[in-house]
Amino acid sequence: MSLLVVGSIALDSIFTPFGETADALGGSAVYFSVAGSLLHPVQVVGVVGSDYPRAELERLAPRGIDWSGVEQAAGESFRWKGKYSYDLQSRETLETRLGVFADFQPKLPEAFRQAEFLFLGNIDPELQLDVLSQVHRPKLVVCDTMNYWIGSKKAPLLDLLSRVDLLMVNDSEARELSGDWNIHRAGRWILAHGPSRVVIKQGEHGALLIEATRTFYVPAFPLETVFDPTGAGDAFAGGFMAYLARTGSITEDNIRRAMVYGAAMGSYAVEQFGIRRLEGITLADVETRVRAFQDLTQVSLAQAPV
Amino acid sequence: MSLLVVGSIALDSIFTPFGETADALGGSAVYFSVAGSLLHPVQVVGVVGSDYPRAELERLAPRGIDWSGVEQAAGESFRWKGKYSYDLQSRETLETRLGVFADFQPKLPEAFRQAEFLFLGNIDPELQLDVLSQVHRPKLVVCDTMNYWIGSKKAPLLDLLSRVDLLMVNDSEARELSGDWNIHRAGRWILAHGPSRVVIKQGEHGALLIEATRTFYVPAFPLETVFDPTGAGDAFAGGFMAYLARTGSITEDNIRRAMVYGAAMGSYAVEQFGIRRLEGITLADVETRVRAFQDLTQVSLAQAPV
Repeated sequence: MSLLVVGSIALDSIFTPFGETADALGGSAVYFSVAGSLLHPVQVVGVVGSDYPRAELERLAPRGIDWSGVEQAAGESFRWKGKYSYDLQSRETLETRLGVFADFQPKLPEAFRQAEFLFLGNIDPELQLDVLSQVHRPKLVVCDTMNYWIGSKKAPLLDLLSRVDLLMVNDSEARELSGDWNIHRAGRWILAHGPSRVVIKQGEHGALLIEATRTFYVPAFPLETVFDPTGAGDAFAGGFMAYLARTGSITEDNIRRAMVYGAAMGSYAVEQFGIRRLEGITLADVETRVRAFQDLTQVSLAQAPV
Repeated sequence: MSLLVVGSIALDSIFTPFGETADALGGSAVYFSVAGSLLHPVQVVGVVGSDYPRAELERLAPRGIDWSGVEQAAGESFRWKGKYSYDLQSRETLETRLGVFADFQPKLPEAFRQAEFLFLGNIDPELQLDVLSQVHRPKLVVCDTMNYWIGSKKAPLLDLLSRVDLLMVNDSEARELSGDWNIHRAGRWILAHGPSRVVIKQGEHGALLIEATRTFYVPAFPLETVFDPTGAGDAFAGGFMAYLARTGSITEDNIRRAMVYGAAMGSYAVEQFGIRRLEGITLADVETRVRAFQDLTQVSLAQAPV
């Protein structure tokens, strides 16, 4: 089943304690599709400026990424510059230049409007609503957002929430959106505003899937070497959505499995700068890590003799 | 099999956003034994001052807590006063008065020296070593420690580490002890210094069991109402050790199950002030929460059609 993502396509300059990159391929749609394409073809809608190294994107096309929905506009590409703390636990945004992203008006190619799995990456909620209106009959709509939109575009964001199946956000975003510091109450608040499910990403502490009556938890994979946390959440989303599109099922059990595939992708994403690690792995690597997640959480309580 | 704990028996004064208590029963040995006794009898070694409400301890004896190893010394009992932040994520120690604890010299009753499961709660590592030397042939020795001892008694602490089977600490303690901010590398460092296993408690983010070749993760139970985090780690330890003593097995599988029982006890501990919630629950309640933990992490990957 077809999988469509709309999101940012950026040039990232990242400083970590272990090194730095300048103008490297980044942005939510890029991380999402590089991870997701390990499992299922991905269609991308976005915009780049006239300075974007489009050949770099095309180099990734054979993985199964359809960039035909990426518009090239006159002007500068979206750029983000950030610096991580010594322990990678926090980061500072040094510079954000929206460039052509400021005037982006997504227009979906006709073929993309049939998408069954739609991921609305972190962009202006009005644009997310616009994209949603262009897709005919999606089977599952998932959206992301960020603190900036929660503060500046709350009304369209709430409108969007009432129209999506699942919101996927960081814990700090869930707290800010709901006004509640308790992450489980924050999840309830979100469910009360539309989505039947919410995924709350907690970085090195894993991710929660909160539904009306059940909660599922997937830990972060134990990594002794984390290199660059950028894009881990978008890689998680890519693995999650692509697993669902590949299997074509959105049962509760399958969504739990998708959480593990998402966590596996997120864990690979952070092992090298930018998209490098995700580019270098195979489906077999993903399966190996998924099995490692199983071992990490497996406990047989049926045999407990209490 | 017999279970022995040595640790503090305190009078706690706690301020949370939801209320306060003064001179309430607390201390690591108290939380440990109130939780653990839901599963297995607990023998306690410790000291209280002449002002301690000993009748309050005796009231708990019918649960299966043997206080006969608790010495009553002339002087003031150990007191701790602390205040939690609005979101319970951090706390400030307002006052610590060691009282009779300052001159404590543990002397184990003869019957206690046969203990098969020994938990060395967070006290001076020299005292922990002393207690360990008095126990004849323990099957499993687990110890806790804290930043204070890591800073002031590193040498005896390292000596102790080389003599125990498992170290159980908070993430901040694991980081301080190893000098490594990465929790998994910190775990490796600890394993290299003696214990064959380390449990790293991460508060609202659950707990890790790190062994030579495997890692197990148990999340914290999703709680929409947390009232008082005091004692959660000691309740975890009590559930963990009492489950092992009850079942008499220290296989890898059984230790994973013990982690879930520990997490269940920790999750109950925080639902009311002090030991109140732990006092009010039954073994059936514990079993119910253990099953809820299973549901929280259960995912069938065998059926994944990738």
